Amino acid sequence: MENLALNNILTRSSVRTYLPDRQIQENDIELILKAGMAAPSAVNRQPWQFVVVRDKSTLRRLADSLPYAKMAAHASTAIIPCGDKKNFLEGIDDSLWVQDLSAATENILLAAHALGYGGVWTCVYPHPERENPVREILSIPDGIVPFAVIPIGVPANPPHIIDKWDPSKIHNEKW
Amino acid sequence: MENLALNNILTRSSVRTYLPDRQIQENDIELILKAGMAAPSAVNRQPWQFVVVRDKSTLRRLADSLPYAKMAAHASTAIIPCGDKKNFLEGIDDSLWVQDLSAATENILLAAHALGYGGVWTCVYPHPERENPVREILSIPDGIVPFAVIPIGVPANPPHIIDKWDPSKIHNEKW
Repeated sequence: MENLALNNILTRSSVRTYLPDRQIQENDIELILKAGMAAPSAVNRQPWQFVVVRDKSTLRRLADSLPYAKMAAHASTAIIPCGDKKNFLEGIDDSLWVQDLSAATENILLAAHALGYGGVWTCVYPHPERENPVREILSIPDGIVPFAVIPIGVPANPPHIIDKWDPSKIHNEKW
Repeated sequence: MENLALNNILTRSSVRTYLPDRQIQENDIELILKAGMAAPSAVNRQPWQFVVVRDKSTLRRLADSLPYAKMAAHASTAIIPCGDKKNFLEGIDDSLWVQDLSAATENILLAAHALGYGGVWTCVYPHPERENPVREILSIPDGIVPFAVIPIGVPANPPHIIDKWDPSKIHNEKW
């Protein structure tokens, strides 16, 4: 019997080309964001905020500014998860927001896939030369850190799933 | 119509108490590890390794050494995702393994939930006072960085799902 939830995790892949005339439904955008906010976070701080871009000229500006996010120009939507410094932990834990935002980003990618879309995680943080244009284009204030740009759309091609299963990476009981 | 894959993401919660006599099936452990290895990673480096602990005395030693992982003593299994330095990127990207391991950890938690188990992400990295005992107990060599301890078992209680949906964290088109 197929486990649909597990299968969704195993069949997610990075989708970089999108059908040009197919948009993400608004209620699906909301579900994808709900999935992002359902991620676990250290001490339940939920140190995230999300910018959702649908405007074609803004998508184009993001694509033109970020060499690794050129596919954003042709996406239906881009979601930009951001860290919110007022909810960061302190001391040695001040970097844990990166783990929280990564879990949220993975949930967003999985939810998009579950709904028939495809997306790709393009890294912004910790690159200042990527963070700065994203901050400017999206009017992101001080105290908010752009973490990634996730272009999403309806896949133009059949999925290209990389089989990354490698039993040699499993160590039983100890190393 | 319920979307089972999406629902799995929205209903995952941190599970800290487990039925004492119920173990995780070996083929389910393999599926959970497959989900971990199906995570995206920067430049597809897959910089991860996984230690799987089932031995009760080792679970107890981990619990006794880690104040935030005391529930490991009563778990069926603990999975310890680790970063493998030989697959880390260089320069400013040398921290991206944390994002990759976080995505793998979230996939593991989601896969456990999809299979009827429950787990919890207990943070190890970047705390040396947590990393050192994990390294010693599991004989983890130099070059490998223990990232988290994920106790997993059959939930003892009904799920306690926190509704973290907060539309005020969504910013349309720009901030």
